[in-house]
This record gives sequence, C-alpha cells and structure tokens, in this order.
Amino acid sequence: MPAVPPRSGDAIFASIERVNAELFTLTYGAIVRQLLTDLEEVDEVNKQLDQMGYNIGIRLIDEFLAKANISRCVDFKETADVIAKVGFKMFLGISASVTNWDADGTTCSIVLEDNPLVDFVELPDTCQGLYYCNVLSGVIRGALEMVSMKTEVTWVRDMLRGDDAYELQVKLLKQVPEEYPYKDDE
Amino acid sequence: MPAVPPRSGDAIFASIERVNAELFTLTYGAIVRQLLTDLEEVDEVNKQLDQMGYNIGIRLIDEFLAKANISRCVDFKETADVIAKVGFKMFLGISASVTNWDADGTTCSIVLEDNPLVDFVELPDTCQGLYYCNVLSGVIRGALEMVSMKTEVTWVRDMLRGDDAYELQVKLLKQVPEEYPYKDDE
Repeated sequence: MPAVPPRSGDAIFASIERVNAELFTLTYGAIVRQLLTDLEEVDEVNKQLDQMGYNIGIRLIDEFLAKANISRCVDFKETADVIAKVGFKMFLGISASVTNWDADGTTCSIVLEDNPLVDFVELPDTCQGLYYCNVLSGVIRGALEMVSMKTEVTWVRDMLRGDDAYELQVKLLKQVPEEYPYKDDE
Repeated sequence: MPAVPPRSGDAIFASIERVNAELFTLTYGAIVRQLLTDLEEVDEVNKQLDQMGYNIGIRLIDEFLAKANISRCVDFKETADVIAKVGFKMFLGISASVTNWDADGTTCSIVLEDNPLVDFVELPDTCQGLYYCNVLSGVIRGALEMVSMKTEVTWVRDMLRGDDAYELQVKLLKQVPEEYPYKDDE
C-alpha cells in the first residue's frame, strides 16, 4: 500500500468541523476573566491557562495525527515545522513560521501571523503580568509530550504586552521513549 | 435602497472565520473542569457557566445582527425561530428547532439536533447536578437582553443527564425599552 502523504493544514482545516471564531474568542476571554476573578494572582492565572492548554494538547494530538496523516516526525526541526504550518492552520486557521533556531537545533521560535485569541482584547493595567494566550504554550507542551518530546514553551514576544509580534519559544528538554498515554479501556 | 434580506445560517456560517470544533470542545471542557476544581459546588459551577455565557451573549449579539442582516424581530416567536435556525447554525454549525409553545406565546423550547459542546464528555457521578452546557442558556439570555427581551432560559432535557435530547426552555419575562448597553467611549 503506498504511503499516504501528509495533508496540508489548509486542506485539513477546510474539511473538519468548525465553530465560529468569535464565539471561540469570547469563550476564551470568558475563561481568562473567570480565572482572574477566582485566582486573583496573575501568576496563578498564567499557570492555570498553561495547565488547561496542556490538558487540551494531550487530547488534541490524536486528532492532529489522524487528520494530518502524520505518523512520526524525523526530528525536532520537522516537528516544529509541522506545528507551525499544519497545527496552527488546522486548529486556529492561521499560519505561523519557525525561526530563531539555536546552533544545536533544540530551541526555536514559532511566530504567529495572526492570533484569533486576542480579537477585541485589551488588558487593563492590573493585568500587566498576564500571558493572556498561555493556553497555546500549554497545548504545544502537552501535544509534544504525547509524542515523546519534553519541552518548555514560553512567550518571548506578546503584542498585548506591547511587542511587535506573538512569538513562542519552544525548547526541547529531552526526548523520552514513547508510551501510549492511556490504557485502551480508560 | 431595497431592503437586504436576512441571510441563512448556512450562508453566514460558510462565510465567517472559524476554528476547529474539537479545539472549541476541549477548551470548553477545560473551563468546566477548572470551575469544578475551583468552586467545588456544582450549583456554583452552573451559575458561573451561565454568567460566562451571559457575558459572551451580550457581545455576540452584535456580530449576529450584523452578519445575519437582521434588524429587529417582529415578536418573540420570530425571535425564537431566528435563534434556532440562524443563531445555532451561525455560531456552532448546528441546527435546532423550536417547539412546545405555550398558549400565550411567551414560552417555547429550543431542541438541539446536535451538540458539539459534549463530544467526548462523560460526567462522573460526583457531577450529577451539573448543567454542563449552561453556557448556552447564558448566551441566549445575554443576547436577548441586548434586544430588549428579559428571559429565563433553563434546560428541560439534557442527554448528559440521561434524557433523550438537549432541550432549552426559553421564557419571555418582559420586553424592556431598548437601550444601547455601552457608552461609545467604553
């Protein structure tokens, strides 16, 4: 049987079930507002958003691999490209690019070309330490952990904090032997 | 200038920006889980989900009216039809039907034909009192309040609670004079 080539993010995005982006944006905004009210500390909110993203990422990876016809990436470099070119397109309908590789190929940046999470968002002064989009770093971290890559994902530029782009740094900490995360009967 | 006819939910849904439905579903699930952890009491979670929905609804109504070319509904009956036929399609990509009208036309049910919020969801025994989809009742209540209708929106059937459908009862409490909710400079 010939191998099925990976599908483009555009093709996948066009073929899957979707919901209105504004509903998603407002729902996400409602979460952040809720967490700010419940937790009070901005650092705690950052942590919770990251943890929520992690929980989403460890589940989203299955759909991603199935829909994108991707079995395994050769290395971290290819992985980063797939996240940027296929992942962001497939889930958020946006493009992203990979840049700022370090010399040994274990750290890079993903720069978003658009960011539907932040439509209509302005942060009040009381939220200056907030990483509003921290769910995204958690999603990447969670998804990569399910394919054997322990990573650290941090925002290095954030337009809500006055920067000129949204840039996530992804640092590969170690590759661990792959284990299936759930037992079949769970 | 000839009046522009209202657009169908399908046409609007096809033309607007969207995100992956599974991402939305998992994100919503992450909110509910978060609220259950933070608030502990299921009744409090129901209230918060409703309040989050309300905050979403009072903003979503603007896009809805603009994209659907709807200026004003003649009466509550037409309003309910528009929510079911255009609103659910436009935001969640699903159809819904209006049924169970009472004699004086102030209470009806909206029955969902599908419910993307609950994909992959099973409630543990500890969450038996939870109205998992309570955000939807809040959205409808909030949106209708912005077009002068005070309503009470409650779940009368919920498949996560063992019923055979998702049915929301919408009860018109009063129609209030329309006021613009925000000052322009807010």
